[in-house]
Amino acid sequence: MAMSIPEKVRRIYHSTELIPLLLFSLKWLFIASIIGLLSGAASAIFLILLDWATNYRELNNWIIALLPIAGLAIGYTYYSYGSDVVKGNNQLLEEIHSPKQMVPLKMAPLVLCSTIITHLFGGSAGREGTAVQMGGSIADQFTKIFNLHDRDRKLLLISGMSAGFASVFGTPLAGLVFGLEVFLAGGTRYTAILPALFAALIADWTCRSLGVVHTVYHIPFIPKFTPITMLYAVVAGLFFGLTARAFSVIMHWFQHQFARFVKTPYLRPFFGGIIIAALFYFIGTRYAGLGIPLIKQAFVEPLPYYDFILKLLFTAFTLGCGFKGGEVTPLFFIGATLGNILTFFIPLPLSLLAGMGFVAVFAGASNTPIACTLMGLELFGIESGLFIAIACIVAYIFSGHSGIYGSQIIEIPKH
Amino acid sequence: MAMSIPEKVRRIYHSTELIPLLLFSLKWLFIASIIGLLSGAASAIFLILLDWATNYRELNNWIIALLPIAGLAIGYTYYSYGSDVVKGNNQLLEEIHSPKQMVPLKMAPLVLCSTIITHLFGGSAGREGTAVQMGGSIADQFTKIFNLHDRDRKLLLISGMSAGFASVFGTPLAGLVFGLEVFLAGGTRYTAILPALFAALIADWTCRSLGVVHTVYHIPFIPKFTPITMLYAVVAGLFFGLTARAFSVIMHWFQHQFARFVKTPYLRPFFGGIIIAALFYFIGTRYAGLGIPLIKQAFVEPLPYYDFILKLLFTAFTLGCGFKGGEVTPLFFIGATLGNILTFFIPLPLSLLAGMGFVAVFAGASNTPIACTLMGLELFGIESGLFIAIACIVAYIFSGHSGIYGSQIIEIPKH
Repeated sequence: MAMSIPEKVRRIYHSTELIPLLLFSLKWLFIASIIGLLSGAASAIFLILLDWATNYRELNNWIIALLPIAGLAIGYTYYSYGSDVVKGNNQLLEEIHSPKQMVPLKMAPLVLCSTIITHLFGGSAGREGTAVQMGGSIADQFTKIFNLHDRDRKLLLISGMSAGFASVFGTPLAGLVFGLEVFLAGGTRYTAILPALFAALIADWTCRSLGVVHTVYHIPFIPKFTPITMLYAVVAGLFFGLTARAFSVIMHWFQHQFARFVKTPYLRPFFGGIIIAALFYFIGTRYAGLGIPLIKQAFVEPLPYYDFILKLLFTAFTLGCGFKGGEVTPLFFIGATLGNILTFFIPLPLSLLAGMGFVAVFAGASNTPIACTLMGLELFGIESGLFIAIACIVAYIFSGHSGIYGSQIIEIPKH
Repeated sequence: MAMSIPEKVRRIYHSTELIPLLLFSLKWLFIASIIGLLSGAASAIFLILLDWATNYRELNNWIIALLPIAGLAIGYTYYSYGSDVVKGNNQLLEEIHSPKQMVPLKMAPLVLCSTIITHLFGGSAGREGTAVQMGGSIADQFTKIFNLHDRDRKLLLISGMSAGFASVFGTPLAGLVFGLEVFLAGGTRYTAILPALFAALIADWTCRSLGVVHTVYHIPFIPKFTPITMLYAVVAGLFFGLTARAFSVIMHWFQHQFARFVKTPYLRPFFGGIIIAALFYFIGTRYAGLGIPLIKQAFVEPLPYYDFILKLLFTAFTLGCGFKGGEVTPLFFIGATLGNILTFFIPLPLSLLAGMGFVAVFAGASNTPIACTLMGLELFGIESGLFIAIACIVAYIFSGHSGIYGSQIIEIPKH
């Protein structure tokens, strides 16, 4: 039967779904922008406090002696008031996979305060966990406010994680892809691509507008890409991947040992703090806190070979016993200092290897190779792109099937 | 039962799967490099011939009068010798999804020759289809040579497509992600991430080493990113997405009409050629061939508003009636000229909008938003990255659930 022209036009119009698409986009432009604003502002406050805490600690290193007390405070607070948010990033990943209950807003202040305390008293930890958890828990509050269903809630959580990541590192494209990549191992899904985009961009803009200036890293010289330099980069990627794997394994091992020998959860960071403080007393505070000055140094001049090993052990221990923060900045440290020493037997420039390690160890540990490649492009420029991509992807392949986030679902095996 | 130390070490060693991972990596480093070398060389030959054909046609526009004969030749060749390779890109996608039979090597020379003929006689077509099909069919030959199984064959096909795309546009990272993104709509899977990486990088290197120089586009000024400029970019992305959708719909409509009214397949490009040649005779050859000079112009000065519409119609018609090549460079043309005129009511710089359209219309039509964002970064630099990402992702959302590749599987609905 032939259709009339108006009927045809009506059908074509309906098949384009233009109105539903527009409504979908406007809705998420609105919600994701609010998430971006709030989580960008939270990241800015966090980064400013973190800066203050780091500066204070560097001028008053005696404060590290109080690390056990700080650990006890963090442990006891989570034990008494935070048992429903203590799983952190993994909790967000689990809610994305199988929604059970709203992430309480208190996750944000709890992780913020305990991270600042961890850093103030010299714990070796990072900051992405904090930003991602603040973003995720802020975002989840809109589930109630806008009365959203499970499918939309997933978009909220992913957007919040993207926003937190984007704003804390000043890398919006990496933040966008991180949110899409992190809950699976072995692929991305574009379910949340539009909300995550808006949330990441607005969060980064908000954080910068509030005066936060992100560290700049510089790779002055990039060698020509040839099959030979490609092979060098592959070998470097192999080391970065194995180091990422070692980090995850050792951190989980410390966690396991603490759970085994210290039955009371809130005492774990107390005893852990005693050991860390004692070690720092003997070997100095080189591996305390974020370690950004040393990361910058790794791009410029040769560093001791043991830097990456000790930072790895200190961070795995600090987080394994229950201090808060995140793994990423220490993984940048570990990767950059490992890259730095690889220059002794891999003929690539020191700063390039430092930059490759910076993103690749993290790519391996978190199973997010494309987000980390984008992060490399955003931080170091497009010129180093091919080497960065090789390092991230090879590290991802060699880092094994478990990473720092235990609640990732393995979608695609690596080989 | 406590394990002995050697037993523990043995277990840890096995759980790392180090040897299987190394073997996997070495195997694919080897195979993917060969695919990269061959398909990069094929792209180089193709681009050199294409350059020659385009130059010849521009100096001898009378040759367009012979377009119907060229169409007949292409149609008859595919009808007689190429019925098993005529589905082109879609055939590769189908083999990735459900492996049935090897892609014959003749796909490569057939698509190469018919694309060169299409361009020599002034057809409005592209070149990515050709490169991707050459890459895919070359890669698939190794199934037999190395006696590979279905799972490995998938990696081969994806690597070949990545290699073709990477080398024909000189954008290795975009090529890598294109291969991972194109067979699904709504996500990526990292099944082939390592082989595709090596194939894309080596193919691009090979093509450049053989003397091919890729066109450089320049976006001289990028405005500050703010929520306002973000909104402008979103509106532009909406137009790019709707244009991508219009292109797919119109091309399939022409295909359908030709199939309906011209029963003999090889006569379709003949009759189509007559119509195209007649139209070019009356309105000039502005929309013949790849149209790279006009694309470059779109970055520099205002162009007529009808450029993008006419190029869209000519390309959809040319490919719809059975000429060969691909959709991508015409989509670059359509996007860049559309971006160019959007500057009249979207207050962003002309060259930025041209660049956004360049990649975003293609992102929408092929459902590959991350590959196209990377392409934008590789072609225009990291500074335009946020605007490029918005354009590609919004265009992807608004381009609808069918694109230029009918054999994509929709993994994730867009809203």
